[in-house]
Amino acid sequence: MVITRELDLATQGFTDIQDITTQIQLLIRESELQAGIVTIFCPGSTGGLTTIEYENGALRDFQEVLENLAPLRRDYHHHLRWGDDNGSSHIRAALVGPSLTVPFVGGRLTLGTWQQLIFLDFDTRPRSRKLVVQIMGE
Amino acid sequence: MVITRELDLATQGFTDIQDITTQIQLLIRESELQAGIVTIFCPGSTGGLTTIEYENGALRDFQEVLENLAPLRRDYHHHLRWGDDNGSSHIRAALVGPSLTVPFVGGRLTLGTWQQLIFLDFDTRPRSRKLVVQIMGE
Amino acid sequence: MVITRELDLATQGFTDIQDITTQIQLLIRESELQAGIVTIFCPGSTGGLTTIEYENGALRDFQEVLENLAPLRRDYHHHLRWGDDNGSSHIRAALVGPSLTVPFVGGRLTLGTWQQLIFLDFDTRPRSRKLVVQIMGE
Repeated sequence: MVITRELDLATQGFTDIQDITTQIQLLIRESELQAGIVTIFCPGSTGGLTTIEYENGALRDFQEVLENLAPLRRDYHHHLRWGDDNGSSHIRAALVGPSLTVPFVGGRLTLGTWQQLIFLDFDTRPRSRKLVVQIMGE
Repeated sequence: MVITRELDLATQGFTDIQDITTQIQLLIRESELQAGIVTIFCPGSTGGLTTIEYENGALRDFQEVLENLAPLRRDYHHHLRWGDDNGSSHIRAALVGPSLTVPFVGGRLTLGTWQQLIFLDFDTRPRSRKLVVQIMGE
Repeated sequence: MVITRELDLATQGFTDIQDITTQIQLLIRESELQAGIVTIFCPGSTGGLTTIEYENGALRDFQEVLENLAPLRRDYHHHLRWGDDNGSSHIRAALVGPSLTVPFVGGRLTLGTWQQLIFLDFDTRPRSRKLVVQIMGE
């Protein structure tokens, strides 16, 4: 059985990190499926999904490492070609990845206690995002 | 329902990046499934899968960041031990990841307008690749 | 059909890398499913999953690149805030990712010959881990 939903998010860009655990758990509850996987997918090449301990210190650390990896201000080929300013966003998104698959059991996500599902918006402006949330199971 | 297909690619190695969106979309169409997930998997430890805006500038930017992360020319332990020259390939592949799962709805991938599915061949020679494409849904 | 199992691991932390291929293959065999996907998930924000050629040289190379990316000893915000010492663990885990999905066909993982499934424990102490292994297919 396959159930597809959307999750609407208003983000600030610039590696804004949002905790989406509660919303995803709610969609699983509403699906009434007991066991299976939820796949969360970002349609767009400047967002990413992963998990972290959603705590301000860890979030800033993650943002700083991503800034070292692909700094916001640099003469990216993407900028020179298109007059765009979000070259770093594309690289961060490709590295973190646009998709996350998490098992659920007894209608509950199998996350650890200090682990949250996060969406990262790497774009260089506020965005309205619609994530795809697909629940598959029995 | 589970449908497994293979996708044949001829690649150049050295972080050759290929857009596989059209081929994957075609396999979903042929499956006649309407909603579900497609999992694309690289059997081999020197390839990776993710999404990006498939545009020459963004591709070169991504290649340059990967070169900074794990430079092609360096005295890797993997080289010293095996006389091999693809130590950087293994690291890039492990970081980007060998697997990508994307939801489809109404027989169509849920990608954004400027977002493509890509396979990256990190090996240090041309390769013939067979990716596994598994479609699951209803 | 969905089958959920746990995999118990005793790890050393500090980017201890364990080959879990044989155990995952065994769980698929026991499920008696022929084709589908296995999703391996780490409940906890200091572990990661990917594939690599499980060879001491490549493992050390990967550990060294991760140490460059997010060094063990650094004044992370996470440390200052919580008196904790595993800031690097959280970043490495978020980057490598907590989830891995691999297709199987004919009851066998579709891995390449020199490719193994690995769990990486990034925490700063030995841990007892319970990975979630969910097998879905027919």
